[in-house]
This record gives sequence, structure tokens and C-alpha cells, in this order.
Amino acid sequence: MSDYTDLNGTPRSFGDAEAQREVRENDRGYVFHSWSAQGKIDPLPVARGEGAKFWDYDGTEYLDFSSQLVNLNLGHQHPGLVKAIQDQAGRLTTIQPALANDARGELAKRIVEHSFEGARSVFFTNGGAEAIEYAVRLARQSSGKRKILSRYRSYHGSTGTAITMTGEPRRWANDVIDGEVVHFFGPYAYRSAFWAETPEQETERALAHLEQQIQLEGPGTIAAVVLETVTGTNGVLVPPPGYLPGVREITERHGILLILDEVMVGFGRTGEWFAYQGFDVRPDLVTFAKGVNSGYVPLGGVVISEAVHEAFVERPFPGGLTYSGHPLACAAGVATFDIFEREGILERVRDLGSRVIEPRLREIFEKHPSVGEYRGTGLFWALELVRDRATREPLVPFNASGDAAAPFNAVVAACKEAGLWPFAAGNRLQIAPPLVISEEDLVRGLDIIDEALKVADSYVVGA
Amino acid sequence: MSDYTDLNGTPRSFGDAEAQREVRENDRGYVFHSWSAQGKIDPLPVARGEGAKFWDYDGTEYLDFSSQLVNLNLGHQHPGLVKAIQDQAGRLTTIQPALANDARGELAKRIVEHSFEGARSVFFTNGGAEAIEYAVRLARQSSGKRKILSRYRSYHGSTGTAITMTGEPRRWANDVIDGEVVHFFGPYAYRSAFWAETPEQETERALAHLEQQIQLEGPGTIAAVVLETVTGTNGVLVPPPGYLPGVREITERHGILLILDEVMVGFGRTGEWFAYQGFDVRPDLVTFAKGVNSGYVPLGGVVISEAVHEAFVERPFPGGLTYSGHPLACAAGVATFDIFEREGILERVRDLGSRVIEPRLREIFEKHPSVGEYRGTGLFWALELVRDRATREPLVPFNASGDAAAPFNAVVAACKEAGLWPFAAGNRLQIAPPLVISEEDLVRGLDIIDEALKVADSYVVGA
Repeated sequence: MSDYTDLNGTPRSFGDAEAQREVRENDRGYVFHSWSAQGKIDPLPVARGEGAKFWDYDGTEYLDFSSQLVNLNLGHQHPGLVKAIQDQAGRLTTIQPALANDARGELAKRIVEHSFEGARSVFFTNGGAEAIEYAVRLARQSSGKRKILSRYRSYHGSTGTAITMTGEPRRWANDVIDGEVVHFFGPYAYRSAFWAETPEQETERALAHLEQQIQLEGPGTIAAVVLETVTGTNGVLVPPPGYLPGVREITERHGILLILDEVMVGFGRTGEWFAYQGFDVRPDLVTFAKGVNSGYVPLGGVVISEAVHEAFVERPFPGGLTYSGHPLACAAGVATFDIFEREGILERVRDLGSRVIEPRLREIFEKHPSVGEYRGTGLFWALELVRDRATREPLVPFNASGDAAAPFNAVVAACKEAGLWPFAAGNRLQIAPPLVISEEDLVRGLDIIDEALKVADSYVVGA
Repeated sequence: MSDYTDLNGTPRSFGDAEAQREVRENDRGYVFHSWSAQGKIDPLPVARGEGAKFWDYDGTEYLDFSSQLVNLNLGHQHPGLVKAIQDQAGRLTTIQPALANDARGELAKRIVEHSFEGARSVFFTNGGAEAIEYAVRLARQSSGKRKILSRYRSYHGSTGTAITMTGEPRRWANDVIDGEVVHFFGPYAYRSAFWAETPEQETERALAHLEQQIQLEGPGTIAAVVLETVTGTNGVLVPPPGYLPGVREITERHGILLILDEVMVGFGRTGEWFAYQGFDVRPDLVTFAKGVNSGYVPLGGVVISEAVHEAFVERPFPGGLTYSGHPLACAAGVATFDIFEREGILERVRDLGSRVIEPRLREIFEKHPSVGEYRGTGLFWALELVRDRATREPLVPFNASGDAAAPFNAVVAACKEAGLWPFAAGNRLQIAPPLVISEEDLVRGLDIIDEALKVADSYVVGA
């Protein structure tokens, strides 16, 4: 049996230096990479993926604890998804959005049926950033208002408006395109912006802060408040009890729409179809991408409430794209629903999160002084690494790079050395494996993290 | 043999009213459509496509003269593209952009090798609008300047910056997101903005106009000038001799980058790999999408010059996306190059355009008083319909809708009635069939247009 097949379909074996050299040369020769200094990167060529693992050309195996940017919820090369794509490719790869298509309609129906009460329709895009662009347009055009409130410590994508809404350093280097986006603080008990001492206080103060900021920005000027239901890259920040219902109450009272960004957490990451279903909140617009078909074919979209939909029944919605509701992408989305149900994905996410991850991370927290806090839900967790538990000084400074980031990079390197590809962000080791990961692999991955944290411990004050 | 297969893979026959009803119900029940008043549309359910044709559920056949928004350059269900997608789906559907992948690197290499002298790398996106977003960011971030000059009568996509750059009515209904975009006039001899009487004069005056506008906007404030190489939806406006080299000379002299938008015309539409290759001009950045893989998997991108690339060798480019360089999409792009070469696509586009279309449109022009002008190149043409050849009054007013658009809509309806799906825009019947269309079908489609123009003739002044 071969280890992988090359682009021509030829079976190949690991260890072929020539094949690896060619992939690397083409990459460095011709591919311009996201978020990178092109002269300072050396991307690892990947030959094959399967389930929760992938392999480089030497045959080195990596356990994927990042799901390729929290994307591959059903893992690498899920046979059901692969078959759905191959079948749809043979039927009808694509048709323009102005026509009707079975895969597009069926996926929209499934998504609406699994959404909040009052959900009415789905506008499909090519990915998460575009989903945010169009959610904002739907909010602005239906409300007649322009301002958008978005949180610090958030990531909403990299196109013009999406990057302006982003509340972390990736926005800094960018031109601010959209002048009507304003940022506010959300709850983050471990590093409270509100001098709170308990989760209850954090919720109460975060809501009071939002209320004040809305008052001073002018409720009548604000189209929408945008939140990641569970903040993703910026820390796996699970909203404390009462926060999301509180935001809903405030926005509703002021006639402001609530957009929940579920690009990362939608489709099972937290053990629900949509993460908001665990937090007693009814949004007006919900963005999704990634998990909808595990990114096997680019797809994103916006779930639209009846009230927002209603604004565009008689007058045209001013927006659209050639690939909206792409049949190949949608067929993979339909298959995703089937697979989730057949394999009981939501149930296993909840089970693995509470029975395997949480207790193991508690042990790790107790053992390693470099772990300031562990937090998360379902198959989405973060270990916040610190130099000092008392002061909570992070292992590396906020937005560190180069030498300043060395201690954290050493931890990441130790993980990779041991065969684990983590979801590393700031001073946090984040955990987001494919939802199909076996219990055995999950335990093994946590063991690798346990071991790698010795490196972090060595930087702890007084160590 | 069955007529088509349904979403479950079951072979079905045309005329199944139940199947059609279900597709229509799901569409109207759950799908939010681009650019539409949701209560006023009734999208045609499509059961199957092949080559230059597609069929509805009743088995009605349509000859596709629009290529599904000038997208399916290799037609519906090209076996080579379908196979490439099925093979790649079985190998490795996707991997994150920070890793290296063979399909991604190979496609980037092929694109650069078929691009302008000095092309260095490719940044991949999910589609055309995003390609424009990132081309603008590359221009702004590399130049340190902010202003973008874009033409009236252009379409550059619908996300925040892209829609602001668009120079036609689809921009009007939108919030202007990007305050640093300025519009200028391009050449359009039939409706000259410069009171020109010859193509030579049109070129000369269009360049003088651009030079003046750059002077008054301040050359030191302008990052880039953006052009569709051949204007697409807004009229198939082929640049007159000397215009593009003139724009290049002006921009170069002022230290302004030149972005050519080839989302519609790249990959063979004009009989060249990229349309600019027919116009003696060397751009700095080129956007593409659609034709790169006939939209079978969402994909777009930017071809980047050595000089712009160089700006991001030591410092990071601030932008990116999860699906950048998506392997499934890129594999279909690699197959596109193979198929173009194997089937001699560029040669047949040039041949069909000059030998079949041009002479037949000349006949049609001479026969129908409603045809004010015919123009185009390769497999991309427009018939501009008028009420009066002398005054050039368009058949319907600019941006007409409802009753005001009725005369033009009647022509479009006559085409569809006769089995032709045209690319209709404003007062123009545009012609953009798949590049694989047979000569026989092409002739038949032009015959249908010839016949349908009797409807347009009936509105001509004095008819």
C-alpha cells in the first residue's frame, strides 16, 4: 500500500526527498502566504491527512489539535464528506445564484431548521470574512443605521469591514476602511477590564459597560452589536452566565440587532449545532463558515431572522456574489448534517469535553505553575500560560514576536517535536482537535501537552 | 439512461413535477438571493448541465450564452475538471494556508509562468471580490499611499472596498465603506465622455482626462489605478488602441501601481491567457477568479509583481484567510491549464470570435435598426440596443427597472423562449458562452438572437 498519492494520482512512499523538494520549491517560488513575511517562513509540506492526523513527506505524523485553523470539524478526509463531493462533482458542480439548485436549497433548509426560533433564510458566501461583510450589510441596510459595535479581543476576518471589526493586533497593521465601527470590552474574568472579582460581577459590569457605551455612542446610530459567541483565536473566552442574555436584553431594548459570529464555533465545536444554543440567547443574524462542511469546499453564510429578511421582500438586497450557494460546497454541507447525526458528533463532543478534557486539564493546571488558567467547553479549550500565577504576567508579552516570543515558541516547538500540532495563539496553547478524534488520540495529545509544559514551567518566576 | 441524478444519487427523468416543486419550495423557503427583492423572484430550478447547455426539470434545454455569470469557461461538467476534483477530493481536500501543498504550489507556478514579465507570486482568495480587496491592500501597504482610482462603468465585486470601487448602480444602494476611492471616466467611443469623434481621439482624450484627474487628486496620494482590462458587465468595452499602454505610462511616471481586474476576462475569454496580453501593457497586480477553474470550486487570487512582493519579504503582509490556496480549488485550476492546452482553447476562442461571431454580428447589425453598435473580442461581445441609431437613445433608460425596462425584458424573454440564456445587462445583449461551445451551437445561438431582435426593432423610433 502506498503512503499517499501525488498530484498526478501516482502512489508514492514517504521519504521521497525529490517530491518534498518540489513542493517546497513551488511554495517558496510562487505562493504568497497569509499574515507572513515571505522571506522568513518555511512552510511544512503536507503529503496526507486522515481523521485527526496528518503527515509530512518524511512520514512524520502530527496529531492535529488545531483542525487546520479550527476548520476541519469532521477531520481530514472524512469518507462521507469526500464521497458527497465526488458525487456532486459528477452531478452538477455549480450553477449561478439566480437559478435554483437542490443542494443549495436543501442545505439552507437544514441550517434554518437547526437555528434559532424565527430564523427565516440563509445567504451563502465563500467564507467567514464575507459572511461578516454581508451580515453587517444586512444589519445596516435593514435598520437604516450605520454604526457597528464589536468587541476587543475578537477576530472577524480580514476583508475591509471584517478587519476593521476585528479587535486584536491583526487590525493594527491595516488601513481602517470602515469608519463606523466602534470597539467595546467583553467579559474576560482572568484579565478583567472591569476590576471584577467574581464571574457574576464580571457579567454585571460587562453589561453595565456595554450599556454605557451604547448610551454614549447613541442607540439611534447603532445598527448592530457583533460578538463571537465564544471568542476563538483570542482566548477561547466562554461567556459567563447571564452575559449573552444580558446583551440580548440591552440590544433589544435599544432597537439594535445582535449578530453572533459562529465562524469558528458553529457546527459542533461546543457540543451544540450553534454555540449560542448553549447560552439562552436568540440572535438576529448568525455568521458561519468552516464547520459547515469542514472547509472541504469554501463556504460561509449568514442565517437571517424573519424581521431582517422581511426588509428585503419588496426591495432588493444590494449585494451578491457569483459563487453564492455553490452547489459543490452546499452538497458537502448537507452531508455534514447527515454525518453529525449518524455519528452522534454533538454527543461525543460533550462527552469528551466533560469526561476527558476538563479533568485532565485540571490535573495539568494543578501540576504546572506556568498554567495560569484553563478554560473552555466541548472540544474547545485554552491553557493560559504565565510567568507568575500571582501577578498573572503572561509567559510572553501581548502581541510578542521575535525574541520576546521565544519562551512560548519553545513550548510550541516541544509540542511539534513530540508529534502534536497545537492551536497556538498569544500566550495560549489552545485545543481544538477534529470532533471525530478518538479518545485514545485525545488522551495522547493531552499527555504531550503535559510534557511540553515543562518548558513553560522553566520560565516561571522563581523556577 | 436517466436524464439527471438527484441529491441522493438516484437517477431521475425530466418531467417529475414533485422533484421540481421540492427544489422550488426549498429555494423560496430558505435561500436568500443575491441582488434581489426576495418576494419578487421565481428562480428556475436547474436539473443538469453539460458543455454549453443546461436543462430545467421539465427537460427544457437552454443554450448558455452567459456561462453562468461569465464563469464556466470550460462549460458545464467538463469531464477533465470533474475528474480533477474527484481525484483531489480523494487525496487531500484541504490544508491550512500556513503549510505547503502540492496543488497550491503547482497552480501558483503555472499562473506566474503564464503571466507578465516580472510576475513573482500569487495570493489566493475565495473569489473575485476578495481578490480585489487584497489587491488594494497589497497596493496600499506596499506604497504607503491610500487613494485608489477606479473607473465609472465598472464592477469589481460586492464586499466593502470592492463595491465602493464599483462604478455603476450596484454601488448606489450601498453604504460607501471606503472613503479613499475616486472614480474617473474610461474610453467608450459609442457614448464618449470626451466628445471624441474617432477611436484615436477617444484614447487621447481619455488619457488626458486621467492625467488631469491624477494631477488634481495628487499623485503622491494615489496607491493604484484599477481597471477591468476589458470592461465586462458594463458593456464589453474593449480598450481602444493605445489606451492601456498610455495608462501604464502615466501611472509609471507618477509612481502609481496599475491593478488589472481580470476576474471576468482572465483565462481565455478574449483568446489570451490574460486579456492584457493582447494590449501591450505590463501591470503590477492582476486579479482573477471564475475562469481559473470555471468556478467549479470557489477560487480567486492576485498575481503579484516582484516589486510589490519585495515589500513583504521582511515585514508581514497584514491579511489572510483560512481557505487561501485551497487544495481542492487549486487542483481544478491545475487541470484547467492542462485542458486549455490539450484542447487548444485559446486558438479556438480567437478562431470562433473572428471567423464566426464578428461577421455574423455585422450581418445582424446591418439588418436590425435596434442594434446601435456591436463590439467585442474572442468569445465576449455586446449588442447595444437603441431606439434610434441617430441619437443613440438606448432601448431602455440607464438603470431602468419595472415598466421602464419592459422593451429590453421582452427581448430577453424572446431569447429564453427560443432556448437561449443570454447575458443581459442594461440595454445590451451580451454574448459570453463557454469557450468549449461547438461552432454549430454558437451559430444556432446567434440565429436565435437575430430572430429575437425583431422584438427590439418594434420599439425603434418610426418602426
